[in-house]
Amino acid sequence: MEHEVIARCRSVAECTEEPGFTTRTFLSPPMHEVHQRLRAWMEQAGMSVRIDSAGNLRAAYSAAQPGAPPLFLGSHLDTVPHAGAFDGILGVVLAVALVEKLAGRRLKFSIEVVGFSEEEGVRFGVPFIGSRAFIGEEVADARVSDAIRAFGLDPTSIADARAAGNALGYLEFHIEQGPILESLDLPLGIAESIAGQSRLAVTFQGRQNHAGTTPMSLRRDALAAAAQWICAVEREAGATAGLVATVGRLEVEPGATNVIPGAARATLDVRHADDAVRCLAVERFLRSARQLAQWRGLSVSSEPLLDQPAVAMDAAFVAALEQAVTGSHYPLHRMTSGAGHDAMVVARRMPAALLFLRSPGGISHHPDENVLPEDVAAALTVGMHFLEQMEARLG
Amino acid sequence: MEHEVIARCRSVAECTEEPGFTTRTFLSPPMHEVHQRLRAWMEQAGMSVRIDSAGNLRAAYSAAQPGAPPLFLGSHLDTVPHAGAFDGILGVVLAVALVEKLAGRRLKFSIEVVGFSEEEGVRFGVPFIGSRAFIGEEVADARVSDAIRAFGLDPTSIADARAAGNALGYLEFHIEQGPILESLDLPLGIAESIAGQSRLAVTFQGRQNHAGTTPMSLRRDALAAAAQWICAVEREAGATAGLVATVGRLEVEPGATNVIPGAARATLDVRHADDAVRCLAVERFLRSARQLAQWRGLSVSSEPLLDQPAVAMDAAFVAALEQAVTGSHYPLHRMTSGAGHDAMVVARRMPAALLFLRSPGGISHHPDENVLPEDVAAALTVGMHFLEQMEARLG
Repeated sequence: MEHEVIARCRSVAECTEEPGFTTRTFLSPPMHEVHQRLRAWMEQAGMSVRIDSAGNLRAAYSAAQPGAPPLFLGSHLDTVPHAGAFDGILGVVLAVALVEKLAGRRLKFSIEVVGFSEEEGVRFGVPFIGSRAFIGEEVADARVSDAIRAFGLDPTSIADARAAGNALGYLEFHIEQGPILESLDLPLGIAESIAGQSRLAVTFQGRQNHAGTTPMSLRRDALAAAAQWICAVEREAGATAGLVATVGRLEVEPGATNVIPGAARATLDVRHADDAVRCLAVERFLRSARQLAQWRGLSVSSEPLLDQPAVAMDAAFVAALEQAVTGSHYPLHRMTSGAGHDAMVVARRMPAALLFLRSPGGISHHPDENVLPEDVAAALTVGMHFLEQMEARLG
Repeated sequence: MEHEVIARCRSVAECTEEPGFTTRTFLSPPMHEVHQRLRAWMEQAGMSVRIDSAGNLRAAYSAAQPGAPPLFLGSHLDTVPHAGAFDGILGVVLAVALVEKLAGRRLKFSIEVVGFSEEEGVRFGVPFIGSRAFIGEEVADARVSDAIRAFGLDPTSIADARAAGNALGYLEFHIEQGPILESLDLPLGIAESIAGQSRLAVTFQGRQNHAGTTPMSLRRDALAAAAQWICAVEREAGATAGLVATVGRLEVEPGATNVIPGAARATLDVRHADDAVRCLAVERFLRSARQLAQWRGLSVSSEPLLDQPAVAMDAAFVAALEQAVTGSHYPLHRMTSGAGHDAMVVARRMPAALLFLRSPGGISHHPDENVLPEDVAAALTVGMHFLEQMEARLG
């Protein structure tokens, strides 16, 4: 069945706004075809399918008794530009395969597979439209409402996207999108939390000058200062367990071969599972920027762009997932998710858990993104164990 | 007279392509007005004026005897965009003032003041059009010929720009455009050479990855590598007397806040009076790039963009300039010019020397560019001593 899961993901990757690539933003035209293909597999597994007014695809597999609480399984259907075939969609296809493996057997809870309409934030720069509507948050501003209407849905009915109040919780399968599991030679990892994140703009202001006539000792080179700071950030981040810090953008002014840079504008992205560690690290990075700027006779300024606390996954759900992993005889590995996922949003409303599948080469958001059949098989086995645990718990 | 020199420079700065700034490229329309204003001062000083077919303004002050050799004095008339009022033009105005100070007295040599039409290379990306035509080099490609024709001159007559074969040499006055004289509290400096220059493109290629999901230990961050290299370049350049090395451009790919940079493209500008020192330094910089790239598991490539040897000023002319400085009771300071000047080109054809005037704040290529009246007075005094030296030498 793992090969079928992979084949289905690759089939959905054909639905794209841009021929030759996989690019599928919030409720863009190819999303109709995504819904159609998934609907066929869902109905074949005995589920009843609807599309809610936030554009989420919802497939219900009823319980043995009416009125039983639902367990939600899912992930997102949208992609980044020039995406791979597994980010998001794998979690939906895998959930459908789990229901298929039940082969008609009914449980003490219903299962609802959710394909969220939007997670990546590409179309409007605002992520998690699908999962935020699912937990009842306000998402339908004018542009989102227009997009919903253009897709043939009614934004005024968006309350129909809300999850039932008596839900057991939410389980998401997702590729890791990083190299950790591969480096540890592990198929699966349990995210026990999603890292908090700080983003800042940091600008060094020096003195633009002639590269030929200004001796090294009389320079106030903004790029040299930024470079020294980037080295300090890398060194300090590497010395703190679990901390990642990235300077992803650096713009140099005026940016001419023969002119000493007068200004260097950097961005800094800092993440850690523990908010206190993260905030202390940001303070340390800014202090080292100020110190080296002062030492060099430059000025430095910073502006916070984002300060997002860490989100813990539900302890009981994580424990159940651990039992499912060990019960399936796979090695146990708890980790922090460095990226945001729908589970992070859904966790505000109900118990949530997140199971990572190894990403070969750590590659994601790229056409070479991949997943191994044996890891999909592992996830299916663990998923079935998880359903059995829930069944036993409701005993 | 020093105040008059400064006032004339500021008057010429009004001739511009761009109101509110001083921007005057090769044979642009405002150059007509520059010629007109200078011509008036030149004729008033007893000189006969012509414009050669390269657009250079030429003003001859005849000797006591016909057929005497000429001494050339001058600099350039064009500017960078948003320039100051002294780069180039000061050398021409100062030369006219020297002739004016002769008050009709004739010497054993004639004096020809040259206002070169082009030095900065702004209009066509190729510098020194005026001085290269002056030494008889081929400059009139299709674009240059069109510009000459559009200005009302005849490019087929460009041989009329060539300097006479029996010239004594060329003396140029120019603002330093750097902070060295000011830092030493000196009005004047004698350039004994013009630094050689290497320009290179250096590209670090790492692995683009997710800033949240990739631990510090598994990154191949191209920007972090470039930053470490920039620090090494700065440190090594600072440890070598007279060496300057500048990374003026740095482009980061993909340049997103939450993506580890996959590539960083830098430029490197290296200058020194001694070509061997410069070439060794470039080798050392590239070796350190390769070493740290290897250590980090990245690749690095480099491409030479320019390799321009140092140019020595004429020893006898430099000695005469030294005698003029000490004879005027100013402190003596020999230095290397970190920037190229017309004197560097003219030196290929005849003895040349270059006298720098202090640049307040080291500022140039900027509207705040300035020169002090007392330093202009010093240059005039030294210039008159230099003329006396030449006169004595022809004794």
